[in-house]
Amino acid sequence: MAARKIGPGTYQMSRVGIKSTAAIVGPKEGEGPLRTYFDEVWESETHQQKSVERAERMLLEDTMNLAVEKAGCRWPEIDLVLGGDLLDQIVSTNFVARRHQRPLLGLFSACAVFTEALGLGGLLVADHEPTTVAVGAVSHHMAAERQFRFPVELGYQRTPTAAWTATAAGAVVVGPAEVGHVVIDGVTFGRVVDWGSKDPNDMGSAMAPAAFDTIKQHLVATGEGINDYDAIFTGDLGVLGVNLLQALGNKEGLHFDDRLNDCGKSLYYLKEQDVHNGASGPGCSASVFAGYLHHRLLSGEWRRLLLVATGALFSPTTYQQGESIPCIAHAVSLGRPEAKLS
Amino acid sequence: MAARKIGPGTYQMSRVGIKSTAAIVGPKEGEGPLRTYFDEVWESETHQQKSVERAERMLLEDTMNLAVEKAGCRWPEIDLVLGGDLLDQIVSTNFVARRHQRPLLGLFSACAVFTEALGLGGLLVADHEPTTVAVGAVSHHMAAERQFRFPVELGYQRTPTAAWTATAAGAVVVGPAEVGHVVIDGVTFGRVVDWGSKDPNDMGSAMAPAAFDTIKQHLVATGEGINDYDAIFTGDLGVLGVNLLQALGNKEGLHFDDRLNDCGKSLYYLKEQDVHNGASGPGCSASVFAGYLHHRLLSGEWRRLLLVATGALFSPTTYQQGESIPCIAHAVSLGRPEAKLS
Repeated sequence: MAARKIGPGTYQMSRVGIKSTAAIVGPKEGEGPLRTYFDEVWESETHQQKSVERAERMLLEDTMNLAVEKAGCRWPEIDLVLGGDLLDQIVSTNFVARRHQRPLLGLFSACAVFTEALGLGGLLVADHEPTTVAVGAVSHHMAAERQFRFPVELGYQRTPTAAWTATAAGAVVVGPAEVGHVVIDGVTFGRVVDWGSKDPNDMGSAMAPAAFDTIKQHLVATGEGINDYDAIFTGDLGVLGVNLLQALGNKEGLHFDDRLNDCGKSLYYLKEQDVHNGASGPGCSASVFAGYLHHRLLSGEWRRLLLVATGALFSPTTYQQGESIPCIAHAVSLGRPEAKLS
Repeated sequence: MAARKIGPGTYQMSRVGIKSTAAIVGPKEGEGPLRTYFDEVWESETHQQKSVERAERMLLEDTMNLAVEKAGCRWPEIDLVLGGDLLDQIVSTNFVARRHQRPLLGLFSACAVFTEALGLGGLLVADHEPTTVAVGAVSHHMAAERQFRFPVELGYQRTPTAAWTATAAGAVVVGPAEVGHVVIDGVTFGRVVDWGSKDPNDMGSAMAPAAFDTIKQHLVATGEGINDYDAIFTGDLGVLGVNLLQALGNKEGLHFDDRLNDCGKSLYYLKEQDVHNGASGPGCSASVFAGYLHHRLLSGEWRRLLLVATGALFSPTTYQQGESIPCIAHAVSLGRPEAKLS
């Protein structure tokens, strides 16, 4: 079991397995097409907590506890925890770490943090036997809105290009692969790409070039093509971002066609649930992977998946100061369980 | 060259070397006792930038560029960049990454981020030959004050326990060790410790228990004692925090005595420069290490150093909601250059 660097930011690894996943979502996410894949659906956004920030924290804590339980572990058996969230100073991740008491690598790459954590966690497992890590990411609609835009109580109108930050958390326990585990076999950590977009209400378009850059880098380093994957899922590009990514691909002869999909496009019934461009937030790709995508690999329906979470790295301050929005994407490649481990 | 896990969150590594360091600081830091160790001292806090946030960004960018130049590298030769800062959504780190265009692992552990990045960077170098990484951390007094407390223009009075967030950046290029390199030989990633302190104007006392927890964990895992280090430098505990840490140690028979010091206590003439408890901010431990501490190892004056950056993981929102302050510390152990590499 070991990992190998095969390009700038790209590593291949073998025999790294997903021991368990857990996903808990809010009520709106529980009314979407993936509802049956989630472990739990909250009945309200606040879940009896006295603030939305506390609710976000509890969402992450419950989801991580569940993943550890489903892995047949107890917290003291977890070597390291990796993860992040969207709140200033990643307070959800840090406050949850106060409870589980395991060494913490706090990460931030906005909505790309789930694959940053999953890829880095996979590397640490591959390089240091035996290691078991827990990975988690969370977002909460009301907490994100009031931090980045306005409190939802204001009832402001959203633009047609805006995404809906998901109330959702996903967690994964990663360890040495065993028969029956979905495996992590590669990661590409992305670089920051900024095409000058300044519209925080159209982050799908801002992030698409970063997703494209990371996917290209991953394919060049691994020598793979689109057809080596049954599905390529971006994080939260939404309708507009995916269209732009398709166009960028076609221009350079990289035809994604129907292999390309997006967690943000998958979480809601876009029209019926009035979410415009789709879902966003670190919890979007984390919950869609932990609930739905992992299941499709586990069932053997898909052979391989490339998960490319995407993040917009602005802050309200940089936006107000007229800066454009730097973006990043980190890609993790995953495979279905092998009947026998090589 | 490889790293070995020897405890929860603790890794030993061999032949990981520091190729270069760079430190650039603001005018106040340039008037302190360490001024001759810094590569550059800015003449003003804003450095002709139109906002303090832009100044912080430029401080990090200039420092990282200088470290890469001093390592005899160009940016395309850097495999990965690791780092963070104190601003919401670590925008300084992310905006600088837009310029250097290397794969980025964005990290957040408040003022502990420099050792989180240095330790993780060291691990990736140890595990994946050949790898060269750049590590950086920054803070800016005026940008931090207006984000966490009030704009300095308000002229509010600071409490006697308050720390002064440093305008400072430190950067390090890490690669396979060569003769003449200071080496990184271990890291312990800490867990979150919260003893219930709620006073954001006395973070030294809040963080001391986290520093103690990580140091203890590091010594237990490595089988070392205090005397195996010529110096143990915490990040930004300041006068109060160091006193508390000494007391915690004495209580458990771990006598630090005069081997214990603190970057935050070292950066300013505490009384003359009216900084109360000392310096703080991610740039504090980063610049004090990159300027001063690295020099003492390089010159052979010290044989071994344990650098334990410390972070207070609260946000203005959690503080206003009455939450206590979770803290974390990450420790990196370093050794002076060997005449011959083993």
